[in-house]
Amino acid sequence: MARWEPNARERLVRAALDLFAEQGYDATTVNEIADRAGLTKTTFFRHFPDKREVLFAGQGAHSRLLADAITAAPASATPLEAVGAALDAITATFTDERREFSARLRPVIAGNSELQERAAFKRAGLAGAMTEALRRRGVREPTASLAAEFGVRAFYDAFDRWADPANQRTCAELARHALDELRAAAVALDGQP
Amino acid sequence: MARWEPNARERLVRAALDLFAEQGYDATTVNEIADRAGLTKTTFFRHFPDKREVLFAGQGAHSRLLADAITAAPASATPLEAVGAALDAITATFTDERREFSARLRPVIAGNSELQERAAFKRAGLAGAMTEALRRRGVREPTASLAAEFGVRAFYDAFDRWADPANQRTCAELARHALDELRAAAVALDGQP
Repeated sequence: MARWEPNARERLVRAALDLFAEQGYDATTVNEIADRAGLTKTTFFRHFPDKREVLFAGQGAHSRLLADAITAAPASATPLEAVGAALDAITATFTDERREFSARLRPVIAGNSELQERAAFKRAGLAGAMTEALRRRGVREPTASLAAEFGVRAFYDAFDRWADPANQRTCAELARHALDELRAAAVALDGQP
Repeated sequence: MARWEPNARERLVRAALDLFAEQGYDATTVNEIADRAGLTKTTFFRHFPDKREVLFAGQGAHSRLLADAITAAPASATPLEAVGAALDAITATFTDERREFSARLRPVIAGNSELQERAAFKRAGLAGAMTEALRRRGVREPTASLAAEFGVRAFYDAFDRWADPANQRTCAELARHALDELRAAAVALDGQP
């Protein structure tokens, strides 16, 4: 019979990241992850379809956060202003507690092509969620998907800087700064290199 | 002993696409692909590491085409002009003969999440190749990667329209048109929706 396991999902995510960092992603089995978390393989599979998905468990929640913030932005907001509101919403969840976790996640994904592929797919999913939300506001193509692309770029750029232990700024500040840089870069596209 | 097999690579690609379209990607084995092409499994593995890579065999050549054209663009070219030259170079390889193949490839990739992930990874690879070539021209970040993003967007947009049997225009024309649309969309990012 299924027993209630407090924080099972989070324990599995942390155990997986520990093991991937210690012994590599390929060498780690679902059994080992469950063991390390003090849980069973059955519990693991109640939460995740396979070991890869453990690291991308936040995709659905992130997509909804971004889309909901775009929907909630004032009707007068430009596409990039709506995207800025989405960045504020998602970066608010990147607390200091989460920062150390994020810093350890980066090299694990960078070191494995299967995880890099999955990460690219997540990124495309977040962009798609923002694009849809912008379209529902009446933003036309290709402006909607371009604004969404600016959003994911600013988000990942901010995330990378934020996960660096040398950084002192919040993820929200970094994302706003990255979005401003992209705005300036869009103007430079047809200028001298 | 290895026998020389004329057009083995192309025969394997066509056989794989035929089988994926007929019976599905998951249900198709490497043995079946080799059989259909009139070749052996050993020959298959001389050309591709697995059945998935058969459909992405052009990634290296595409990356080089794009990067080389950016490198060869006049020193006076703006980042987007250099990207336009890259689009001219790659779309010149999308001949009428290739069009039917491309039209059949689209639904196969759309119908399988593993292939969609791989396609997203290829797209990121093409963007990376253009970004690097732009940086070597002295284009700074984030302008370089943004110009590259405009390039892959225009390329995939053009490719999708071109693979549609109802389309009458060349892939090169469609790519130039898509790039112009993106240029206009960049201006609309901060305008009213």
